[in-house]
Amino acid sequence: MPASSTDKDARPGEVSLGFDPGARAEAALCVIGHVRSPWGKGTAPKNLRAARETGRAARIELLPEFVPGLLGLSEGQAIQMLYWVDRGQRDLIVQSPRHTDGPRGVFALRSPVRPNPIALGTVVITSLDREAGIIGIDATDAFDGTPVLDIKPWIPTVDVPPHWRPEG
Amino acid sequence: MPASSTDKDARPGEVSLGFDPGARAEAALCVIGHVRSPWGKGTAPKNLRAARETGRAARIELLPEFVPGLLGLSEGQAIQMLYWVDRGQRDLIVQSPRHTDGPRGVFALRSPVRPNPIALGTVVITSLDREAGIIGIDATDAFDGTPVLDIKPWIPTVDVPPHWRPEG
Repeated sequence: MPASSTDKDARPGEVSLGFDPGARAEAALCVIGHVRSPWGKGTAPKNLRAARETGRAARIELLPEFVPGLLGLSEGQAIQMLYWVDRGQRDLIVQSPRHTDGPRGVFALRSPVRPNPIALGTVVITSLDREAGIIGIDATDAFDGTPVLDIKPWIPTVDVPPHWRPEG
Repeated sequence: MPASSTDKDARPGEVSLGFDPGARAEAALCVIGHVRSPWGKGTAPKNLRAARETGRAARIELLPEFVPGLLGLSEGQAIQMLYWVDRGQRDLIVQSPRHTDGPRGVFALRSPVRPNPIALGTVVITSLDREAGIIGIDATDAFDGTPVLDIKPWIPTVDVPPHWRPEG
């Protein structure tokens, strides 16, 4: 995988680690469920805000063994959804996205191309089937079938920086 | 590991998956750096808010190979820090924390005991040494030496639920 980023596919200014970070395998994950969404390669919104603007809802389908973990969640609640976006190389430590004015380090980007391709979005629970383990969510930019890694309650004192105020 | 949650260590109402989710190893992670903090077992604040109230700063030390990924981050910017808190069992799908009024599913809790023990906090960059790869942060509840998995820029349109307003 690292080879592809050091050859003709790389854009100007991009830098490869020169190894596949996933091959280090220093920690292991399990899949807890999957995203069901209208999106696939070429049709997915570029980010969660754009997904929300489409008005298209989505859902999380938990694997049966993880369904008891829903106890205590409620409709209307905001959650952090962590999902696995390992669809490409993981070694591009400096990237040149079209929307930036020059190369950026991966830790300054929300790109799915990163050493650990864990994506993160704050979504709202719109429906909850506690028996089937199906969580309706207001929006997602994730492709249909994307593996879900974790769900956490969104808590302002942990998830919003101190003193931040929304515009307008 | 699963055994310990089905025997005398379990609190009333707790439920074990009956297997170790980490053993599924469906995705592999690498460590990008480590937290340096004043905290260890028995001294760590219970969450990021409590950590912030102590006034004790902390830092992230990146491994040398990941330092170029900092390009584009700035002092004063808020980031999402993802860190690995695999210090105990991962199989407790329903838990009975002391601070709740009964058992809760793991996906309704921020407990480090979870199928994929990835913790998440929004912190502010207080200093940045781009050569050494050292990021000063305003606070953390992570133990000293905790492996860091990812850093992402905090973006309100992705990380704050729609229509949310702070109290006060």
